[in-house]
Amino acid sequence: MNREKLIEMLIQPSSEKIVLLVLDGLGGIQKDGKTELETANTPNLDSLARESDAGLMVPVLPGITPGSGPGHLALFGYDPVKFQIGRGILSALGVKFPIQAGDLAARVNFATIDSDGNVVDRRAGRIPDEVNRAMCEKIREIKLPGVEFFIETEKEHRAALIFRGRKFSDKISETDPQKTGVPPLVVKPLDDDPISAETARMINEFLEKVKEKLKNEHPANMILLRGFALHTKIPSFKERYGMKACAIAGYPMYRGLASLVGMEVIDVESGITPQFAKLKEVWGEYDFYFVHIKYTDSSGEDGDFERKVSIIEEVDKKIPEILDLKPDVFVVTADHSTPALYKAHSWHPVPVLLHSKWSRKSGISEFGETELIKGSLGIINSLDLITLVLSHSGRLAKFGA
Amino acid sequence: MNREKLIEMLIQPSSEKIVLLVLDGLGGIQKDGKTELETANTPNLDSLARESDAGLMVPVLPGITPGSGPGHLALFGYDPVKFQIGRGILSALGVKFPIQAGDLAARVNFATIDSDGNVVDRRAGRIPDEVNRAMCEKIREIKLPGVEFFIETEKEHRAALIFRGRKFSDKISETDPQKTGVPPLVVKPLDDDPISAETARMINEFLEKVKEKLKNEHPANMILLRGFALHTKIPSFKERYGMKACAIAGYPMYRGLASLVGMEVIDVESGITPQFAKLKEVWGEYDFYFVHIKYTDSSGEDGDFERKVSIIEEVDKKIPEILDLKPDVFVVTADHSTPALYKAHSWHPVPVLLHSKWSRKSGISEFGETELIKGSLGIINSLDLITLVLSHSGRLAKFGA
Repeated sequence: MNREKLIEMLIQPSSEKIVLLVLDGLGGIQKDGKTELETANTPNLDSLARESDAGLMVPVLPGITPGSGPGHLALFGYDPVKFQIGRGILSALGVKFPIQAGDLAARVNFATIDSDGNVVDRRAGRIPDEVNRAMCEKIREIKLPGVEFFIETEKEHRAALIFRGRKFSDKISETDPQKTGVPPLVVKPLDDDPISAETARMINEFLEKVKEKLKNEHPANMILLRGFALHTKIPSFKERYGMKACAIAGYPMYRGLASLVGMEVIDVESGITPQFAKLKEVWGEYDFYFVHIKYTDSSGEDGDFERKVSIIEEVDKKIPEILDLKPDVFVVTADHSTPALYKAHSWHPVPVLLHSKWSRKSGISEFGETELIKGSLGIINSLDLITLVLSHSGRLAKFGA
Repeated sequence: MNREKLIEMLIQPSSEKIVLLVLDGLGGIQKDGKTELETANTPNLDSLARESDAGLMVPVLPGITPGSGPGHLALFGYDPVKFQIGRGILSALGVKFPIQAGDLAARVNFATIDSDGNVVDRRAGRIPDEVNRAMCEKIREIKLPGVEFFIETEKEHRAALIFRGRKFSDKISETDPQKTGVPPLVVKPLDDDPISAETARMINEFLEKVKEKLKNEHPANMILLRGFALHTKIPSFKERYGMKACAIAGYPMYRGLASLVGMEVIDVESGITPQFAKLKEVWGEYDFYFVHIKYTDSSGEDGDFERKVSIIEEVDKKIPEILDLKPDVFVVTADHSTPALYKAHSWHPVPVLLHSKWSRKSGISEFGETELIKGSLGIINSLDLITLVLSHSGRLAKFGA
């Protein structure tokens, strides 16, 4: 029996409220002896960690660097190695497209090509959203025999494309040449399945029609496709855990991930202040509140150690706003590390604290990677978080007599 | 998808250089409050551990004592439970025999039998290598219908025997009676597979011919066979990780293990000084350098706590020679513990440190088992080392979007 079956067997209802605060990319590595989190002045998180279960979590496996998809799926209790979500699906979910099992999705970049058909700008000069929407409208006039398609504006030069109505394959190559001065690539099948060949043929036909349709436009006169992905159904949070969940996330990808597992995605402006205010506003309507703060990751990716420190401090100042709501279970953690020195997602274990009246208090001196090694949870896998959350909120019955 | 598939999917090229220094059997248990490693004065390893990721590793599973094969395979990232390498294969590899998939190998002891056919010396008085070679030459004159065989001198009374050319089984019993005064045992099939019965019959026929061929020799007038093992192909280091690897190991078994995974085995005299000098000599020619030091294990097996301590100190003095080469990733660890008090391989977790510019520094006060519990890696499985090594050297792409 695996973890999923075990949860299914033991799950029981409860009205206790859970807040999962994800500080994206929180984990770091030391600069002058301290990580970003250790450098930050975080009196609220420190005293909370002391009074909570605390430790570190490995998102996938030691040494594996997770993307945002796998990182979050693990936090939500979905094995990221089993549920692999393609970039195209995340784009579609990000624009709130009601994706269905069997749909084939891709990420779209509007691009500029010259009269020879060579790409001169892979982002079409980052066109405004209105131009993007106008081009999408034109593309929607295209007819494809036996296939329905949807193209939805994301932001600037980015859009999501979804094909529906036939059996498709995502074992096909991308069209973005990743450089200028050459034409977009032709889609090719990547395996011997005849469905891959037919899918590639259909998309090449579609792209010819797009080129024809946009030939008098400028600068967005072509599209480049990446991240082809077939959608397969994922059991929802409600089905699995019996919880009504919501997501308070400012960025499309995280909203997409949340909706993928059936969370209700709440409209909110991205930012610590508006997101925390929104949590207070909707408090009581849900069982599970996923709050996603992006800036710890983006400052890490920019290599800006000091900015990451100050964002952590800003979050720390507002921790009492969440405590004031008196959640039964309050988790602060990350989907992966993004050390400012490394300037990218990394494999390093992430900090975690879990506060509830049933916590075995860690007694550690601060919420920081080095100290967390001595925490009450030790180093666990991120996939273990969900059963801890369920137990602490009274949602898991005893296993066995 | 398992770990192997994950690595296959994420692996990417890099030119970063890795040194894996294995101090065989390094882990210990305390005598007068300190293990061998803790007793040793190791300023270089201590400061390196402080500035590195560090922790402990369980070679197979808690409580499982690994042989050298499983211990090393885990360090190389090959699941030792999946890839079980028989003693016979290790012997064949140790004498650099070009073993092929389907070959059946066994370890040979030259022995002395009396006129009644009873074993009087299981090691034939540890004959010199020249006598061993002369006896092998005689045995090679034997003809076996439909089967090719090879016998190769190892050292003293030991040799390797390989059968080829038919479908064999290794589910057969050994012939070493493990005592004197009785005849060598007859090979028996250990399962109901007719191939096991036929393999046993063929080897008994071969042994009759050996007895006849050596009847006028002394003291090596018979052979005893142990560790029958069929060889199945293992994917190489190059295939799996895209790394050109070499082994700087003085003992046949470790050279054999290295060649099993496709490492280039470099000729070197066994010893800390010559092996470290050889590393410097070949530096730059490979991506991955496996350096194997045997003496920590042999002193442990001898129960010589003080000698093990002094060998560790000798290695510590020479650590700067490796650091001077500026490897991008430098790992110091062991294949298993061999506590001097236990006088044998044991199941205790082994020390590990991983030094790279991306290390989350452990900050621990010394490289010793008790302190390593507080290390940044916690207690991981030895099989996790390879993904950490690959990530730290830029060889694993991000998993998922």
